[in-house]
Amino acid sequence: MFELDARIERDTSPVGVLPLCAIRLHHDARYPWVLLVPQRAGVREIHTLSKADRAALTEESAAVSAAMQRLFGADKMNVAALGNMVPQLHVHHVARFASDDAWPGAIWGAHPAASYEAGALGTRLERLRLAFADIEGFTAAS
Amino acid sequence: MFELDARIERDTSPVGVLPLCAIRLHHDARYPWVLLVPQRAGVREIHTLSKADRAALTEESAAVSAAMQRLFGADKMNVAALGNMVPQLHVHHVARFASDDAWPGAIWGAHPAASYEAGALGTRLERLRLAFADIEGFTAAS
Repeated sequence: MFELDARIERDTSPVGVLPLCAIRLHHDARYPWVLLVPQRAGVREIHTLSKADRAALTEESAAVSAAMQRLFGADKMNVAALGNMVPQLHVHHVARFASDDAWPGAIWGAHPAASYEAGALGTRLERLRLAFADIEGFTAAS
Repeated sequence: MFELDARIERDTSPVGVLPLCAIRLHHDARYPWVLLVPQRAGVREIHTLSKADRAALTEESAAVSAAMQRLFGADKMNVAALGNMVPQLHVHHVARFASDDAWPGAIWGAHPAASYEAGALGTRLERLRLAFADIEGFTAAS
């Protein structure tokens, strides 16, 4: 049975779910940063998902990426499945800007995470839920 | 018309092609590191590919990732579309090991690139071509 990894649970907040993936907002306020976590138990690599699940992940990822780029006016979306630290398969979606503090490098390891200010996390979650409302099969977390 | 980005051309060597993507080996010898470059002009984001091309990229990426993990006995595959520096869409496939010099962090920015020793680049290209020979539609570079 699928259960969200404890570290992902701690470091992120729920935006909502799609047919395959849970959508989580990372608590690092430096970047608009969303994880997609396929709700399948024991999967670590994209290539070990079933072909049908991989197709679903691909389309859910593209829809989230497009919506984030539109919402934030990002210069580039970074989409990555790394998972060296947390074994549960998760795909990072990070809105990048030529003005952000890691540009043009990768964000991982560049800076310690910064906390959202009071209220800002809730506001961002709400904006993301609105931006994702058009994606087929999206259900917002309450 | 599709033309390979000059920086990718310089930093990588051709392994071969798949129906959608050119497969290139990165010259940084620290990690087995392959790029897939969809042969489509002017595309920067996965979400702006056509749905059919996105499906092809997904399956080509999964096949390359599985073959690399098998060939190298990797602990984890890192698969990432970043593209903050090189605008042409390209997807990194990096075989990672608990013993590598960036583990468990990301490889980008961790260390300067290391050169392959004489002969080692050609050997790795040949091993990759053999490993990818089973992938549908693969043609080795000569």
